[in-house]
Amino acid sequence: MTDVTAEEYGCVPSMAPVFLMQARVYYEDTDSGGVVYYANYLKFMERARTEYLRSLGFQHSGPAASGDSGSAEQGAAPAVQFVVRDAHMKFVKPAKLDDLLDVSVLVSRLGNAGLDVDQVVSVGGQTVCSATIGLACVSAESLKPARIPAVVKQAMTHKIVEQHHQ
Amino acid sequence: MTDVTAEEYGCVPSMAPVFLMQARVYYEDTDSGGVVYYANYLKFMERARTEYLRSLGFQHSGPAASGDSGSAEQGAAPAVQFVVRDAHMKFVKPAKLDDLLDVSVLVSRLGNAGLDVDQVVSVGGQTVCSATIGLACVSAESLKPARIPAVVKQAMTHKIVEQHHQ
Amino acid sequence: MTDVTAEEYGCVPSMAPVFLMQARVYYEDTDSGGVVYYANYLKFMERARTEYLRSLGFQHSGPAASGDSGSAEQGAAPAVQFVVRDAHMKFVKPAKLDDLLDVSVLVSRLGNAGLDVDQVVSVGGQTVCSATIGLACVSAESLKPARIPAVVKQAMTHKIVEQHHQ
Amino acid sequence: MTDVTAEEYGCVPSMAPVFLMQARVYYEDTDSGGVVYYANYLKFMERARTEYLRSLGFQHSGPAASGDSGSAEQGAAPAVQFVVRDAHMKFVKPAKLDDLLDVSVLVSRLGNAGLDVDQVVSVGGQTVCSATIGLACVSAESLKPARIPAVVKQAMTHKIVEQHHQ
Repeated sequence: MTDVTAEEYGCVPSMAPVFLMQARVYYEDTDSGGVVYYANYLKFMERARTEYLRSLGFQHSGPAASGDSGSAEQGAAPAVQFVVRDAHMKFVKPAKLDDLLDVSVLVSRLGNAGLDVDQVVSVGGQTVCSATIGLACVSAESLKPARIPAVVKQAMTHKIVEQHHQ
Repeated sequence: MTDVTAEEYGCVPSMAPVFLMQARVYYEDTDSGGVVYYANYLKFMERARTEYLRSLGFQHSGPAASGDSGSAEQGAAPAVQFVVRDAHMKFVKPAKLDDLLDVSVLVSRLGNAGLDVDQVVSVGGQTVCSATIGLACVSAESLKPARIPAVVKQAMTHKIVEQHHQ
Repeated sequence: MTDVTAEEYGCVPSMAPVFLMQARVYYEDTDSGGVVYYANYLKFMERARTEYLRSLGFQHSGPAASGDSGSAEQGAAPAVQFVVRDAHMKFVKPAKLDDLLDVSVLVSRLGNAGLDVDQVVSVGGQTVCSATIGLACVSAESLKPARIPAVVKQAMTHKIVEQHHQ
Repeated sequence: MTDVTAEEYGCVPSMAPVFLMQARVYYEDTDSGGVVYYANYLKFMERARTEYLRSLGFQHSGPAASGDSGSAEQGAAPAVQFVVRDAHMKFVKPAKLDDLLDVSVLVSRLGNAGLDVDQVVSVGGQTVCSATIGLACVSAESLKPARIPAVVKQAMTHKIVEQHHQ
């Protein structure tokens, strides 16, 4: 993704560890070419991002994540959503019915108002599809650009640091 | 549909003419069995119901139809939605990629708070899938059961009478 | 399902125990009504049927199940598929984003060439959607009606007996 | 798309005119965010590519196009498919239920074994989503890379010339 400037996102190089999720291929995911319908990889990737955010403690989070801090001092963090702003996908080899997919999530850039997520879908160690998904943080109410709540950003960073210390 | 009593819907025998819509089968609609994925017939049928309602002058209408009368005298009709309450489907023969589907809409029962719609999907005159879809009318705000607005009911009945006079 | 005669399927009353699977609701499953798009319950139900068959040892089985006996004496059982022949669905109350669905599978009739499966989707013990799905067994090659392989039928029956003895 | 070399595709600058198709947004296309689910833009774009190819005389063509020349002299052109190899999408503003989408198709690069298609989805002249879709031509039998049949390439080029002369 060369079309997003570091300035725009206020990015720092990511050291985020990889989050992994598995998903099974069912009939609903395939097409008459006998393989997974390519648009559906965006669905598998979103499921994994959702579970990644859930693992950090954030619900309602597909592209949308409500940052609910529960902090008594600051009041609740403003409710935000992550909306998909761009997607750059490569379809490497087809996955088939009954395949067990490994779907990875790696925050490759973490900015003030958005982030990039690198994702790979693989079967038995072979890459099926890879993508970089650009997410923008918006207010859940106005849908206008918003800062990523500190609690969300800390959780992502904390997870990085935590794993680097293991 | 033997499980819905006439009383419950306040039904009268329908004389509604058949509304028809065509839809093309694309890759997105198929599965690795090489045919249209059966759940997708519900989508084709809903598209046809939506266009049927649009032909009567009602927008925002998938399962949801807002009865917007636009009449200054009576005020706007209450905003309602039609939600799918039950579906009885028979899958007769498969449709394939690139097939041109004929999708029919026939209001077979028109009650006070709901209606039944008989629908057939066919290819070249051969039935592919048939279904009876039961719809309940609900308030767009509270989502509680509501009367079908008179303007909607009249439009459905008017169309019947109109066609019977042709 | 009153429209399928016992004779047609050669049915015996089922004593099958309930198979359960859980599934999460993601954005892909919802519609702009703010709830799970009703057609998608057919997908959740198929996932559960697929996992039920997988638990019995049968792969490639969404609607399709290849009965692979592995028996040296008879050779492999003929490859068959289960195709959905009818579906009778009731939509009771809506499920929402992030809900965790419980999806049940109960073989309610087991015939020679087909079976009926009763399925319930619930959230926190509350029924969301219930359905009876009629499946026909067909040859994987000719797609013509075929007997359910003995090995599949035995597995289904065995599981029943097994659980009744627990 | 900076990651595909001109050499790789044997590209020439495209002068292809824009092909246009309209598509309505139904409930099936939306998500609980109240807008079109972003992955579904890939479906709308594929429908338009399919109709573009159909307008040139080629069937079975979602990503897949069978180049059927029907020429007695040369025999039938080898059956090929176009498979999606990469996709670069930008989601600019959301489309909503009942919107009428304009979906454009512009062949921006036409190589020997693949092509790039620039596509824009808009509503009332406002861009909703834009993408460059990279397609590879493969043998319908072996699914290995294949040359785009001359008859397909000529049809694409002819259309360009035809429109430039109008």
